[in-house]
Amino acid sequence: MNVNATDEEVAGVLRHVRERGFEPIELPGADRLAIGVLGSNPGSIRDAIVDLPGVVEAIPVSKPYKQVTREWHPESTVVDVSGVCIGDGSFTVMAGPCAVENREQMLSTARAVRDAGAAIIRGGAFKPRTSPYSFQGLGLAGLDFLSEARTATGLRVVTEVVTPGDVEVVAGTADMLQVGTRNAQNFALLEAVGDSGRPVLLKRGLSNTIEEWLLAAEYVVAHGNPDVVLCERGIRTFEAYTRNTLDLSAVPVVKSLSHLPVVVDPSHATGHRHLVAPMALAALAAGADGVLIEVHPDPERALSDGAQSLNFAMFEELMAQIRRLSLALDRQLATVPSPAGEAVQG
Amino acid sequence: MNVNATDEEVAGVLRHVRERGFEPIELPGADRLAIGVLGSNPGSIRDAIVDLPGVVEAIPVSKPYKQVTREWHPESTVVDVSGVCIGDGSFTVMAGPCAVENREQMLSTARAVRDAGAAIIRGGAFKPRTSPYSFQGLGLAGLDFLSEARTATGLRVVTEVVTPGDVEVVAGTADMLQVGTRNAQNFALLEAVGDSGRPVLLKRGLSNTIEEWLLAAEYVVAHGNPDVVLCERGIRTFEAYTRNTLDLSAVPVVKSLSHLPVVVDPSHATGHRHLVAPMALAALAAGADGVLIEVHPDPERALSDGAQSLNFAMFEELMAQIRRLSLALDRQLATVPSPAGEAVQG
Amino acid sequence: MNVNATDEEVAGVLRHVRERGFEPIELPGADRLAIGVLGSNPGSIRDAIVDLPGVVEAIPVSKPYKQVTREWHPESTVVDVSGVCIGDGSFTVMAGPCAVENREQMLSTARAVRDAGAAIIRGGAFKPRTSPYSFQGLGLAGLDFLSEARTATGLRVVTEVVTPGDVEVVAGTADMLQVGTRNAQNFALLEAVGDSGRPVLLKRGLSNTIEEWLLAAEYVVAHGNPDVVLCERGIRTFEAYTRNTLDLSAVPVVKSLSHLPVVVDPSHATGHRHLVAPMALAALAAGADGVLIEVHPDPERALSDGAQSLNFAMFEELMAQIRRLSLALDRQLATVPSPAGEAVQG
Amino acid sequence: MNVNATDEEVAGVLRHVRERGFEPIELPGADRLAIGVLGSNPGSIRDAIVDLPGVVEAIPVSKPYKQVTREWHPESTVVDVSGVCIGDGSFTVMAGPCAVENREQMLSTARAVRDAGAAIIRGGAFKPRTSPYSFQGLGLAGLDFLSEARTATGLRVVTEVVTPGDVEVVAGTADMLQVGTRNAQNFALLEAVGDSGRPVLLKRGLSNTIEEWLLAAEYVVAHGNPDVVLCERGIRTFEAYTRNTLDLSAVPVVKSLSHLPVVVDPSHATGHRHLVAPMALAALAAGADGVLIEVHPDPERALSDGAQSLNFAMFEELMAQIRRLSLALDRQLATVPSPAGEAVQG
Repeated sequence: MNVNATDEEVAGVLRHVRERGFEPIELPGADRLAIGVLGSNPGSIRDAIVDLPGVVEAIPVSKPYKQVTREWHPESTVVDVSGVCIGDGSFTVMAGPCAVENREQMLSTARAVRDAGAAIIRGGAFKPRTSPYSFQGLGLAGLDFLSEARTATGLRVVTEVVTPGDVEVVAGTADMLQVGTRNAQNFALLEAVGDSGRPVLLKRGLSNTIEEWLLAAEYVVAHGNPDVVLCERGIRTFEAYTRNTLDLSAVPVVKSLSHLPVVVDPSHATGHRHLVAPMALAALAAGADGVLIEVHPDPERALSDGAQSLNFAMFEELMAQIRRLSLALDRQLATVPSPAGEAVQG
Repeated sequence: MNVNATDEEVAGVLRHVRERGFEPIELPGADRLAIGVLGSNPGSIRDAIVDLPGVVEAIPVSKPYKQVTREWHPESTVVDVSGVCIGDGSFTVMAGPCAVENREQMLSTARAVRDAGAAIIRGGAFKPRTSPYSFQGLGLAGLDFLSEARTATGLRVVTEVVTPGDVEVVAGTADMLQVGTRNAQNFALLEAVGDSGRPVLLKRGLSNTIEEWLLAAEYVVAHGNPDVVLCERGIRTFEAYTRNTLDLSAVPVVKSLSHLPVVVDPSHATGHRHLVAPMALAALAAGADGVLIEVHPDPERALSDGAQSLNFAMFEELMAQIRRLSLALDRQLATVPSPAGEAVQG
Repeated sequence: MNVNATDEEVAGVLRHVRERGFEPIELPGADRLAIGVLGSNPGSIRDAIVDLPGVVEAIPVSKPYKQVTREWHPESTVVDVSGVCIGDGSFTVMAGPCAVENREQMLSTARAVRDAGAAIIRGGAFKPRTSPYSFQGLGLAGLDFLSEARTATGLRVVTEVVTPGDVEVVAGTADMLQVGTRNAQNFALLEAVGDSGRPVLLKRGLSNTIEEWLLAAEYVVAHGNPDVVLCERGIRTFEAYTRNTLDLSAVPVVKSLSHLPVVVDPSHATGHRHLVAPMALAALAAGADGVLIEVHPDPERALSDGAQSLNFAMFEELMAQIRRLSLALDRQLATVPSPAGEAVQG
Repeated sequence: MNVNATDEEVAGVLRHVRERGFEPIELPGADRLAIGVLGSNPGSIRDAIVDLPGVVEAIPVSKPYKQVTREWHPESTVVDVSGVCIGDGSFTVMAGPCAVENREQMLSTARAVRDAGAAIIRGGAFKPRTSPYSFQGLGLAGLDFLSEARTATGLRVVTEVVTPGDVEVVAGTADMLQVGTRNAQNFALLEAVGDSGRPVLLKRGLSNTIEEWLLAAEYVVAHGNPDVVLCERGIRTFEAYTRNTLDLSAVPVVKSLSHLPVVVDPSHATGHRHLVAPMALAALAAGADGVLIEVHPDPERALSDGAQSLNFAMFEELMAQIRRLSLALDRQLATVPSPAGEAVQG
């Protein structure tokens, strides 16, 4: 309450809180009076009271998300992507081109990243592009190439779905569905992937707070799908040297607030090839459950995001560094289960 | 190029540019060499060259959007919303509740805002909410109440559509389709409203640059729909007192870059009732084509956004101020055409 | 407290609060327990308790600033700048070049802006520049030219002071001392201008919240100088089209939180000449107490900030618009008192 | 140029460029004409031409800073802090309390951090505080306690200087002068520490771009002081969970653009004790030359920044992790030279 709030104004707020079915408690301070609001979901009346006469502020105390919090579910969630586990303490490397361009590109990349130690291949068949005149992806043909790469290498597939109507067809190929940064608050899409039965890789929205990101995950979980992997991929700030600003401290924040696994995408976050390796290693050191790395056979000729893609040799070198650092941190690389149930490599 | 770039590095860039079908031009400076790239859509090779050896920066010069620019279409576009024109020099007031809550609420609000001078009624039937546990709107029943309010008052209807699958049904009621801030880069939805034949009110994404916002409009226009009204509604910044930061200078910026009309939503931008009137007047003074104002019969009991909604008396007072200021600026309020083709009021 | 906080953890927090001389109050909620802290300056123990075992959050309720708030001083402050009043309901126009360049430039500009209706002349003699190689101002010679312009026109002078050691000499010429955006949290400088006895024009820091800005003003007032005029000049955001993002809603926010006058600088905020007039008019409509406008005899040849400076004809045209709008808003332009105590013009 | 620019407009720009002593070059594109400007410091006429008739944009190509760039000085700079080297490939840990509070606190902390492996002790005697009512530091007495801690432990001392008038006295005690985030563009202070002859720890301003940060360093170097260590300490963004957003990718960016060493302050960046260790390890993995860690004997009773301070046990544990990770990365911890010129410990 305002320091000069009248008795009448105080009574008005108390009455208002009670009318809405909550219990008000008066908390006199040295300068001003605070009024606590008790009950279930008290945040729901915040809007109603914030501009009542005499009120200075209405501060929410309880959190609006529940199922994704560690408070409600203390054990860490392990997401099983067709046998590749994320969140079990191992470090999962997902790699591949920004966009699926053709059969040869996908197969050669899949072989290269598997040989270097990745467990999951990425590649966009449906591409959300800022400009209507940019390459929008191969669509269904792209899914076929991903499927073929999966068969050829054993790698699991993660690929993006951009609209609810495509969820079924993409889920027919993908082991994990990606929701991209521009769709991070496309609630109809979050509900659709929640209904899909597939693990979901949920990128943080460009300007989403950690709370909004967790609420987006809550949409998926509330639709019956507990298998959500969060992906930090940079937020929008004033700094223009990097494509976005990688908010790496979000990793330990999310690990403390939520039981869901969290991975990092240094390629999209930085937008520059020479920043990818340092930030991937930093993600590992900060406790991330994995990374998502753009790799292309010939980055300078990529149809999208070439500037931030590693070529095969750079990726191999990065994997060697990751192995060495993992060892020092007592962590193992996640591996693809072999057909007989054993790891293909590790 | 780097000041220390070798001849070989320079030759590599020149070769690369030519291979891609563009013409390179060397521009020697005092310190460094710049290389200009000429041809159609030279921006498409930016990614390919930015990390070549010896390259320091690749700076795009031409713009990635075309049809929405004033360069390509110098005359201002006038969007006709079933007879209410936006962008013809008049000032269009759109008002109504955040969410359609029930029949009585919609009818009383429609009458109140029409009597005060609004031309278009707003109200959400499908609500995108950050939390899955918040009120999500009445859906189809909400559309019926909007339709009834239209019949009763003559006001045109603008309401939000949140997913491509709903475009047809919403277009059955709405005179103008709203694309909300969280869907501002939901490209599948932009394409769907582009195909709908209805005027589109396109809110700026929370963290969209003006260029990205214009590119979103370009999606709609490129799908054959020239009737886009841009709506500035606040961007995300570090300032937490207001819900968002109203970027009012975007109004004259957009007016200079694009031929499309631009309106302002001071309610969502500020999140506080007492800031709505000053910012609505400021929008008018800055040259906006209209405003979008949240009005509710009883803001303290609103199911959403109560804190930023005006009650009927406040809205009337604001309209009186708008009239007075419009007069000083030689502008007229947009009015609803009467059944016989004349203005109901003005 | 965490929903799973143990009795021991709760007892630990209660004990801690009492040890520091505050009174804890338990506030049981549906999910979690909150603990209120009563006493003088309870915010001082926030850091001490926020990471105690079992604590989820520590939320400050009382405000850290006092003397500048309207709660503590309800009447609006009127700042008297050698006879030109800011904050008395009038609209004060301050205009002039970014930097003092030479005698002729200052005299011609002073005459032009006085004839057009400005009451205060601005011009930097000491310039804080981002690069050490940019023009840094004329220093003492610049102060002399300002002084001469004052004598010739009767305009009051506002000019920037950049370091405590210069306060005395600048206060010898200036009617009002400006603290620039990069020094908005240079506390030694704030204390020095607090001791100076001169009115202070305090620009908002590029990334200052409104609370931090008011706290900067509190520094000046706490050093015995109540004559502070706040100046909104744009904040740093991701939007790159404008130099900064003018946070115009800060005007009504500051007017409600504080009794100090607030003016707007659309020139630095936008960085583009063609945006200055719309934003100056918007500032007037939003309730600002004045504006600060960059004017230069030949903007294309200005030594700094030419792109955002108006020439004399543009400034005259803007003043005509300001007069017209003021009339519609029942406000008067502040004027320079004539030697005989009457306004020179108005 | 605008796509519709007239020949006359083009001629006007060409003439303007030549008048200013630069050489214009016409670069015809598919849609528009670009005009290159050659000469020394062409950026200086940007403001003059950006708003000429027919001009759409003026894009600077050459960089405004020189001496701090790797282009001009390819070898990495090693800063010698009274025998402790920063930037020579080793990893330097600086630790200590936010503020010097008393003799016992400084001595016990100095012993604890030296025993755990730090090489430099930090502690503020002069504290810039957002509120005038917060603890402002012990001043000269604080310097004495730092000096005593140096003598007792051999640790080198870094401490903040907040205004030019204090540089001499602080340089009498400190081995390295810290310029804080709020003074990162206090150019008078940058010049004063440039003249001081002491190494400078230059924190990045809260909303400084990397370019502005490097330009601040350029001020120091241009005043004859090459010994600048850059410190990333978080930037201001919309995310409110952490105190600021640690921009860790700035580390490899700065390493590529500049030859100066760069260290990271995870304590101020995150504001939470439990985030300090993960971010310190991430900084090491990302290639930083060192870290700055807040350590306090009893964080819950600290006079400032308690929430982000580690106690002695936590710091020891962090140092053990740093040692292990350094080993995997082939890096050594920087150590204090013993009186006889040998390392005290390592």
